[in-house]
Amino acid sequence: MTKLPHMDAQEFLREIGQKINDYLATVFTPDNEPQSLFNAMRYSLLAPGKRLRPALCLAVARTLEVAEEQAMPVAASLELVHAYSLIHDDLPAMDNDDLRRGQPTNHKVFGEATALLAGDGLLTHAFSLLSHRLPFLSSEQQLELVWSLANAAGPHGMVGGQQADLSAETQSPNLATLQFIHTHKTAALIEAAVVMGAIVGQASIEQKELLASYGRHLGLAFQIVDDLLDVTATTQELGKSSGADERQHKMTYPVVVGIAETRRLAENELTQALAALAKTDLHTSLLVGLAELSVRRIH
Amino acid sequence: MTKLPHMDAQEFLREIGQKINDYLATVFTPDNEPQSLFNAMRYSLLAPGKRLRPALCLAVARTLEVAEEQAMPVAASLELVHAYSLIHDDLPAMDNDDLRRGQPTNHKVFGEATALLAGDGLLTHAFSLLSHRLPFLSSEQQLELVWSLANAAGPHGMVGGQQADLSAETQSPNLATLQFIHTHKTAALIEAAVVMGAIVGQASIEQKELLASYGRHLGLAFQIVDDLLDVTATTQELGKSSGADERQHKMTYPVVVGIAETRRLAENELTQALAALAKTDLHTSLLVGLAELSVRRIH
Repeated sequence: MTKLPHMDAQEFLREIGQKINDYLATVFTPDNEPQSLFNAMRYSLLAPGKRLRPALCLAVARTLEVAEEQAMPVAASLELVHAYSLIHDDLPAMDNDDLRRGQPTNHKVFGEATALLAGDGLLTHAFSLLSHRLPFLSSEQQLELVWSLANAAGPHGMVGGQQADLSAETQSPNLATLQFIHTHKTAALIEAAVVMGAIVGQASIEQKELLASYGRHLGLAFQIVDDLLDVTATTQELGKSSGADERQHKMTYPVVVGIAETRRLAENELTQALAALAKTDLHTSLLVGLAELSVRRIH
Repeated sequence: MTKLPHMDAQEFLREIGQKINDYLATVFTPDNEPQSLFNAMRYSLLAPGKRLRPALCLAVARTLEVAEEQAMPVAASLELVHAYSLIHDDLPAMDNDDLRRGQPTNHKVFGEATALLAGDGLLTHAFSLLSHRLPFLSSEQQLELVWSLANAAGPHGMVGGQQADLSAETQSPNLATLQFIHTHKTAALIEAAVVMGAIVGQASIEQKELLASYGRHLGLAFQIVDDLLDVTATTQELGKSSGADERQHKMTYPVVVGIAETRRLAENELTQALAALAKTDLHTSLLVGLAELSVRRIH
């Protein structure tokens, strides 16, 4: 295997973020009708964001020596699902948030009904992206991609985690429930992002399992850090309302185990993510860097 | 081709409806967590209904001599998508309905947040059903099924129709908008049901096109009749609130062209659906019967 040119994770995120944004801008065309729906979908899809999920997918594909053009529609499908989940999460019936990614939330701009449909549309269209005939990928690969995304995003994954998160607002704090929430609500889709990169890169079964483990632990670390940032960062730094978890009586790591132990748990997940990578036969410096970046946000 | 034993459409719907219900009851198992989410999904999925979309899919598969067990997960995916669309449609931000299929609507029983997530979960899980490795079907067939469903249900199909339906509440009545709404909101998924049966049955390209035309015209006829029934039937007959369209200022056929012309348009769509069938080389008596039944509801 030829060694990939070394690329710093931050530099990678900057470069790939721009390419992801360029691609996302082409997913819907300006003449799509009804315009009110497509405007609302574009508004949330193209709002500034880290693009963590597509970037991870593309980083894994790159690690497996697949050119990013080949993996781009696959990576984009993850951002569509993520954008949908944010729109629905922010609705008055859910978290009732006014601010997201530094902008008014979708329903504040387009109204609740259109926001609901924009979320539905983004979610469904993610599966159109994956099932449209893609060059470079076999039907078997595309079908596995659909399965990975549907399973991670659905009731056995993200949607289940969101429901558990809701129910937890009226429960007394406990670590088992918290772990269920974070594993499902956030880690499932981040794991899927990594696995989907592995599918595109035709990883072996063993590589895929180790990469899945990396993605799962990275996803948990990421959500634990998100919990911390909600306590320690400002609204401007977050681009969404700071302190929202506490106001909504969310069950979070700082609430359940305190801030110091939360930091330790994040570091522990990071260690496990890196341990999984170390067991692969791949050049993983980019993936190591991305994991470290995701956790270093707290310092 | 061996001739299928003749089966009356009404008899078929009764028999297949029971089998569809039996299968739908197995899609989620009682130990799935979080129970609140799965209970809400099951509540709407298993509520009494005509099962028109899965029945059409299975009728086409039967016409192409495919045993129903082989097509059942595919048929079920259509009912999951239909159930999701009803849950979201009934939400306070949308039509704000209290009654559906003769029962309180999902959000009336489980609350708005859980109803929203139950819809999201059903929609996403439909794609899990289609992408899980299915015996009897090739990866190519499964991928084409995913594409057909996603395209028909997404922003270029059903979700787009729902948005147009919303926007039309504040527009002056016109036939072009009304046709856009009905083609997208209802006919797209009914056409997909027929096409998905054709994919399972490995129909030729020509057969598939004719069956798609049958499905599209049948879907339009069905929605036109639904518009009529909202005016002419009672709440008890409908299992949902009668007269709701008028109260919500919906743009419907009776509003735009009057009741007599609406009946004529329904008959016209039926005629076109049957004409498409007549051009196939298939034994279409069951499909003819189903189309006639869908329109005969008005008399």
